[in-house]
Amino acid sequence: MNPLYYGVAYYDEYMPYERLQEDIQMMKKAGINVVRIAESTWSTLEPQSGIYDFTSIDRVMDAMYEAGISVIIGTPTYAVPTWMVNEHPDILAMTRNGRNQYGPRQNFDITNPKYLYYCERVIRKLMAHVKDHPSIIGYQVDNETKHYEVSGPAIQTMFAKFMKGRYESLDAMNHHLGLDYWSNRINAWEDFPSMDMTINASLSGEFETFRRKLVTDFLAWQVGIVNEYRKEDQFVTQNFDFDWRGYSYGVQTFVNHYEAAAPFTVVGCDIYHPTQDELTGCEIAFGGDITRCLKNDNYFVIETEAQGHAGWLPYPGQLRLQAFSHLASGANMVAYWHWHSTHNSFETYWKGLLSQDFSPSPTYVEATTIGSDFARLSDKLVDLKKDNKVAVLINNEALSAFNWFKVYYDMDYNDIFRQMFDALYKMNVECDIIDISYPDFTDYDMIVAAPLYAVADEILERLNAYVEQGGHIVYTIRSGFSDDKVKVRSVAQPGIISEACGNFFSQHTEAKQTVIKSDILTIDEANQNLRGWIELLTAKDAEVLATYGHKHWGSYAAITTNNYGKGSATYVGCCPTEAVYSELFSYILNKTGMKTIDQTLAFPTIVRKGTNTAGNKIIYIFNYSDEPVTVTYPYEDATELISGDAIVSGSDVELSAWGFGIYEIEA
Amino acid sequence: MNPLYYGVAYYDEYMPYERLQEDIQMMKKAGINVVRIAESTWSTLEPQSGIYDFTSIDRVMDAMYEAGISVIIGTPTYAVPTWMVNEHPDILAMTRNGRNQYGPRQNFDITNPKYLYYCERVIRKLMAHVKDHPSIIGYQVDNETKHYEVSGPAIQTMFAKFMKGRYESLDAMNHHLGLDYWSNRINAWEDFPSMDMTINASLSGEFETFRRKLVTDFLAWQVGIVNEYRKEDQFVTQNFDFDWRGYSYGVQTFVNHYEAAAPFTVVGCDIYHPTQDELTGCEIAFGGDITRCLKNDNYFVIETEAQGHAGWLPYPGQLRLQAFSHLASGANMVAYWHWHSTHNSFETYWKGLLSQDFSPSPTYVEATTIGSDFARLSDKLVDLKKDNKVAVLINNEALSAFNWFKVYYDMDYNDIFRQMFDALYKMNVECDIIDISYPDFTDYDMIVAAPLYAVADEILERLNAYVEQGGHIVYTIRSGFSDDKVKVRSVAQPGIISEACGNFFSQHTEAKQTVIKSDILTIDEANQNLRGWIELLTAKDAEVLATYGHKHWGSYAAITTNNYGKGSATYVGCCPTEAVYSELFSYILNKTGMKTIDQTLAFPTIVRKGTNTAGNKIIYIFNYSDEPVTVTYPYEDATELISGDAIVSGSDVELSAWGFGIYEIEA
Amino acid sequence: MNPLYYGVAYYDEYMPYERLQEDIQMMKKAGINVVRIAESTWSTLEPQSGIYDFTSIDRVMDAMYEAGISVIIGTPTYAVPTWMVNEHPDILAMTRNGRNQYGPRQNFDITNPKYLYYCERVIRKLMAHVKDHPSIIGYQVDNETKHYEVSGPAIQTMFAKFMKGRYESLDAMNHHLGLDYWSNRINAWEDFPSMDMTINASLSGEFETFRRKLVTDFLAWQVGIVNEYRKEDQFVTQNFDFDWRGYSYGVQTFVNHYEAAAPFTVVGCDIYHPTQDELTGCEIAFGGDITRCLKNDNYFVIETEAQGHAGWLPYPGQLRLQAFSHLASGANMVAYWHWHSTHNSFETYWKGLLSQDFSPSPTYVEATTIGSDFARLSDKLVDLKKDNKVAVLINNEALSAFNWFKVYYDMDYNDIFRQMFDALYKMNVECDIIDISYPDFTDYDMIVAAPLYAVADEILERLNAYVEQGGHIVYTIRSGFSDDKVKVRSVAQPGIISEACGNFFSQHTEAKQTVIKSDILTIDEANQNLRGWIELLTAKDAEVLATYGHKHWGSYAAITTNNYGKGSATYVGCCPTEAVYSELFSYILNKTGMKTIDQTLAFPTIVRKGTNTAGNKIIYIFNYSDEPVTVTYPYEDATELISGDAIVSGSDVELSAWGFGIYEIEA
Repeated sequence: MNPLYYGVAYYDEYMPYERLQEDIQMMKKAGINVVRIAESTWSTLEPQSGIYDFTSIDRVMDAMYEAGISVIIGTPTYAVPTWMVNEHPDILAMTRNGRNQYGPRQNFDITNPKYLYYCERVIRKLMAHVKDHPSIIGYQVDNETKHYEVSGPAIQTMFAKFMKGRYESLDAMNHHLGLDYWSNRINAWEDFPSMDMTINASLSGEFETFRRKLVTDFLAWQVGIVNEYRKEDQFVTQNFDFDWRGYSYGVQTFVNHYEAAAPFTVVGCDIYHPTQDELTGCEIAFGGDITRCLKNDNYFVIETEAQGHAGWLPYPGQLRLQAFSHLASGANMVAYWHWHSTHNSFETYWKGLLSQDFSPSPTYVEATTIGSDFARLSDKLVDLKKDNKVAVLINNEALSAFNWFKVYYDMDYNDIFRQMFDALYKMNVECDIIDISYPDFTDYDMIVAAPLYAVADEILERLNAYVEQGGHIVYTIRSGFSDDKVKVRSVAQPGIISEACGNFFSQHTEAKQTVIKSDILTIDEANQNLRGWIELLTAKDAEVLATYGHKHWGSYAAITTNNYGKGSATYVGCCPTEAVYSELFSYILNKTGMKTIDQTLAFPTIVRKGTNTAGNKIIYIFNYSDEPVTVTYPYEDATELISGDAIVSGSDVELSAWGFGIYEIEA
Repeated sequence: MNPLYYGVAYYDEYMPYERLQEDIQMMKKAGINVVRIAESTWSTLEPQSGIYDFTSIDRVMDAMYEAGISVIIGTPTYAVPTWMVNEHPDILAMTRNGRNQYGPRQNFDITNPKYLYYCERVIRKLMAHVKDHPSIIGYQVDNETKHYEVSGPAIQTMFAKFMKGRYESLDAMNHHLGLDYWSNRINAWEDFPSMDMTINASLSGEFETFRRKLVTDFLAWQVGIVNEYRKEDQFVTQNFDFDWRGYSYGVQTFVNHYEAAAPFTVVGCDIYHPTQDELTGCEIAFGGDITRCLKNDNYFVIETEAQGHAGWLPYPGQLRLQAFSHLASGANMVAYWHWHSTHNSFETYWKGLLSQDFSPSPTYVEATTIGSDFARLSDKLVDLKKDNKVAVLINNEALSAFNWFKVYYDMDYNDIFRQMFDALYKMNVECDIIDISYPDFTDYDMIVAAPLYAVADEILERLNAYVEQGGHIVYTIRSGFSDDKVKVRSVAQPGIISEACGNFFSQHTEAKQTVIKSDILTIDEANQNLRGWIELLTAKDAEVLATYGHKHWGSYAAITTNNYGKGSATYVGCCPTEAVYSELFSYILNKTGMKTIDQTLAFPTIVRKGTNTAGNKIIYIFNYSDEPVTVTYPYEDATELISGDAIVSGSDVELSAWGFGIYEIEA
Repeated sequence: MNPLYYGVAYYDEYMPYERLQEDIQMMKKAGINVVRIAESTWSTLEPQSGIYDFTSIDRVMDAMYEAGISVIIGTPTYAVPTWMVNEHPDILAMTRNGRNQYGPRQNFDITNPKYLYYCERVIRKLMAHVKDHPSIIGYQVDNETKHYEVSGPAIQTMFAKFMKGRYESLDAMNHHLGLDYWSNRINAWEDFPSMDMTINASLSGEFETFRRKLVTDFLAWQVGIVNEYRKEDQFVTQNFDFDWRGYSYGVQTFVNHYEAAAPFTVVGCDIYHPTQDELTGCEIAFGGDITRCLKNDNYFVIETEAQGHAGWLPYPGQLRLQAFSHLASGANMVAYWHWHSTHNSFETYWKGLLSQDFSPSPTYVEATTIGSDFARLSDKLVDLKKDNKVAVLINNEALSAFNWFKVYYDMDYNDIFRQMFDALYKMNVECDIIDISYPDFTDYDMIVAAPLYAVADEILERLNAYVEQGGHIVYTIRSGFSDDKVKVRSVAQPGIISEACGNFFSQHTEAKQTVIKSDILTIDEANQNLRGWIELLTAKDAEVLATYGHKHWGSYAAITTNNYGKGSATYVGCCPTEAVYSELFSYILNKTGMKTIDQTLAFPTIVRKGTNTAGNKIIYIFNYSDEPVTVTYPYEDATELISGDAIVSGSDVELSAWGFGIYEIEA
């Protein structure tokens, strides 16, 4: 069993003066037991084509080893050196905006053979050089890999070939994708046009699928090379990232994480999130829940902020709260980007654990308490396993297609995903996040589906069957609307799932002044407003849970629920507030008997649970607020692990501002 | 006499499955008696260069003919096939943003000889193929044709030659256009620079005039080809569109509709407009009034929305109200874009009469009542003729020049046009919309001029003469300011029309906190605010109707009116609200005795009138509101045509929400 | 001694009809005694390559000479003719957005040898032609010269060579600029990449320094040519401009004015500013104070607005107030851009002294009183000298670097500069504006430093020494933060100046809801809000003047002040309102005994002072408000120069709205 890892990204190359031993002393004091190095330093590692300089890597590995700190080696491929661009400017990607220019990272074409040639050469040189060093526990290939919206003649040609493999004929393709429209028919493969300005959402959807596959292929290719050198007990991982909205939240548009995760022995991610008064834990839970589900296993938080950007300087206690929240989702590593704060360049104000002055700031001092607790409690907290009964269902194809048309309708896919996920999180319903490739939906009692806009018939039929067999599902707007090729269904909506949902609609409109009304759900006035799109639902067999408050649309349903077979299917035909989702989920949990003791607590008191390697139940109770709270501890008698105190079921627990307790219940 | 046409655009090519007979049955039930086909399906029609496939056209024509539904054939030239762009990428237009890319419609250069070659070939093949089919009542050439801001070496060369023909010498051109400024002089024709980044509004104005001429020429050329095949009793039309502000409203910047209309036997237009609580009929009246005036004849509404985009799903009654409002402006056809809603691509959410499920939705059901009434009342309502006494005067040159400088001044040309037109519409003053080429202004008792910013001396002198002979004119800001070459006049403003207006100004400023005040017009506080530009008017001979409320500008006039000869000229030197225009028009109508019985009713009760083919007066009274209203019917005894009821002058008429009556008064 | 100049830019070339004698008569009536001509008319002057036409220049010079009006000849190089671009399109600059296009002025590359060849040729032809004309008092080279963000292969190569000269080795450069980060190392000079998309703020800062040098070099080169022809008693000047924020205010990013001023015999500037209710005099004072300091001498206002754009039409009295405010800052010339208003092109609505109708508008009439007073009082008011005890300290490197990172932090360099300068101006503390090259800081009792973000150690050490020797300094946020290569210091902040400031910080955050609180400074509630960045200061030796109102940051200081040696250093660690700066400056002036009698008056009553050529003290008292004010005249007995009235110390002075008095106190 490996220990809990508490780590930092460490860049000896960036240091303004010689500090290695001094840094190691400070790391040891903070309990840092792993550093990630080498990533993004290609120009230092290979200063000219074919000339290598491992000085910095070697001295860091040696010093870390001596200090008992483990090392993760990152392949340096996500930022290319000047010499490469100077010699081969065509490695810079063509996007719909033209040729990328030198300067930023991730500016190249991940399919360019010249780039791939240099990647392979440097990875092999690096691996051959370091592979026997005892400090190394694993490898990361590349970093936050995406397709960077690459597009250009070679990509377009590859895409045309990809399409050729997916349709029996051009006629079939033209018909299914609706290319007769606006004279877009492709009547010869040689005429296949660039996707840069396509106005066809079906073609665009295919192109997105194709480009996500490029990422999957590129990562698998890098892992293949690393595996030739990697030892059995070393891991190979990737640092996945999520939709970036000024912070990490939401399904990644540019990568199919579920497919891309396959070749890795363990997956990692980065989670950057607001703190101070905006710290809720939602982003930590989301990032953790999805990453854990990629391989249904524990995972690494390879990057998260320490000080982060100026608005995220943590309040006292927040750094601790965050670190243990990651563990509570199943993380086996919490690592900061980065150790120090860079003295030059783009991210000067994206600060690490230390400021540029390397002094032990309050943030660093708080980190020392985390490192100490991680070390002390490692055996208890590592490898936490979950057995969630609720899943949130997503798919990349729906995301891309939904957002292609979002311009008309206000909220994008991840906005709605967030409302549904956050509502569950805040009522302490822990969930997995699965995609439509998940083999057996009956693993879950309830499935909450983010907008299932573009999905193949077969999946929807499986979901109908899931309900029939006793599952409970909640759909939201535009679900079932189009098939996986973004062709709107030519039957009454919501198409195939109409069967389980017991409802239908043929028309939709914008909410404008329309409100949502219900005699069954409690919706206060502040939560009656609707945004964007509303569907004019008619219940066939279903029960109407909510209707529209509007002079002309008042006879239509806004939310319906339907008993179908042994289960139920609930359909939300509008965009209400998160509070309405909470109310709806509460209603369903009650009605189906799925409500548990966890729901006696609610945000800002957050419960996260699992089973540790000893088979004991571990319960985290977090106070996500700036005020102390007293909660009645509702679980079995336990030991609080930070304090070592015994706790009796039903007694009062006091949690300080941004405080928490960890309760171990003997099996 | 042709019947009233109730139509749809029909795309057999886009259908997800075989539906032709089923669609025809539903059309018949809805009273649809005309379909427009073939438009925008070039890639289906000519799948490879020189290879033609008329299957879809033939089967639709045959089936429609059998069902008694007429057909309009559109030339397919406004969206080019993939093979053409693949073989000749240079047909894509160069604009100031570079070469257009493949994907959208209307991406080519309408002057490119390769494009013109393929256009001519496909039009001739299509015409030769269909010309004898008995279903065809007429042809539409291209669609919503504009110049798409084409620009590029060939266009620039053509423009230089155009300019050479307009000036006696380079010196004359340099002087008149003010090219000494910022070293912009052109001292040799060979040096004529690109207009892409010109900073000279006079040059830019000339370039806009030149590019509008390209559209006129292109349309005339297509009509010429079609005419070689067209039978005497078949029409040839064009679907003109207007300024697009999320809906159709305002003078089209890129086409001179008055010139471009010449070769057509009948003109058409598309009118898309807000509905639900924003339905006012203004856009319908505007689009109808301008289109009717292009050839001073009845016209077709070739495209208007049925369901349209999500926010436009009509309330009950609105579809009917809209259809009859088009007739009340003089339309002989009301056709929806489009029959069904496309299952793929760009306009998936721009919905037709049917949703993607093809079910008889409430919108379709309402359409069936329209079709039935159109058929029943066709003889009474077709070919409605008007004899308006008021005209709104526009010109494209003023629009382009006014807007070139608008950045400083808040409201653009069409914003102000809209205030003036809407004020007249809402007080039930029906008007024609004429441009400065109109041969005899004395056809009208009153002319309301949209900002006459850039106009030749001769026109202004004719307008002075018009007033002298008894006409009443209302000008607004910056009228007369510059000549037709966008050279500001070097005399006191408003230049030539100062003579009739009896006022002058030399300075202007921004309104900021300035308000408008009047002892003569009733302007409530909410309507005292001014936007943007104000002119510091001094009345010479004129009466001051309004002044400025401002510490320093209080001594200047804001609105003046002047008796000149037998008529009067009113000048508005600021940008007040629409309500101030209403008040002003009311004042003028009163004073001049032009007020009629129509002004006893006012928005939301809208009156539109004309004479039918029997010589009887037809009066439409519309209720543009979501509440029933009772109005006193002020006209002669009549028959209400929908109900067949007799109505006595002075009696009460009840109109339902979004309801209307049509009154026929025997001649 | 030269007279006070009252001038206009005059463009005979732009006139719609022959007006020269008429214009001269109107100029004479207005007291105009100087015109600037020839500037920006290259295409008229040299209509084809090598063909010259001096007709317009000659006739204007002759007519002006005859009328006794002096002439300034501008070299025409800031707008290139069509023939040049047609023959050599590559003179158009490459910027990061690609090749510039023909149309606007200042579109070329000031380093392009073809452009320089033509420049030199036309300047020599022009100078040779005019040099002996008796009307000429001086020359202006080019106009508002900047580098126009030129970038492109040649510039990049020149920059690489520039960099080679600044670092002892590539390793030193890579290390100092932090290029290991994101693989940006440059390991061979041949690999030096383009700066267009650099993500390294240190490299970018160097590039900005390099490009500012291009401007300095270009201007010096032009002056060198002009000097070969210029007579001893003729001046050579440049029309510098400032940061453009819809008006002129703030340090110019693209030119180092202090270096660029060197070759000129006198410097000029343009100052455009809001008027009407927004007229404060701040922009006039700022522009004057910086321009005066470039050569520590009197200067010319070569361009300022008369009517300007629509929103700036002056209220009665404002044109006078503005003209004398320029003199009060030390201007020897006040000249309008421009005499008339152009009838065509880009600046049609940027109006001159006359409107396009050339009539004597109220603005012109007011100008005649200014011209008359200038002539009458010339000897008293010309060559005003100042001896300011306070300086505002700026530097271009800090501006560029501060703003590079501003995206995170709300206020840019000039926003903060403005708060500090305006606060001083409004409390009647006149100041010089100096840059870090100023040789002896002890010339000033107090120095107020705009964000000294990127500054070399040596300057900061000199500032510490300045304080030690008795100087008082006020720093604001991020001062001392990085060195002159934009490398953040690796010691506790504010780095070197921490010594004099007696404080330190290691962490910063965003203000959000944080307020500023003080027991020492009076800060009313409206001024407690903070914007953007806050530093968590700890006082070492310093006194805490203000703290943060915030649950977690309350223990940190917001403003500290420290006695150090014989002086004091005050440090503001946040972005408060201008009112807090006023309060702080007032506190410091009081405490240090620097407060003077001038502070008995305050905005809108503004005092500006100096000594005239007779050695008498001249005191201007301005009323920058739309209401009359009565002030107690606090100075020695004097003569008011406009009225000629004697004024006794302590008596009441009445100033009309936008009025002023000028008091001469016999030495």
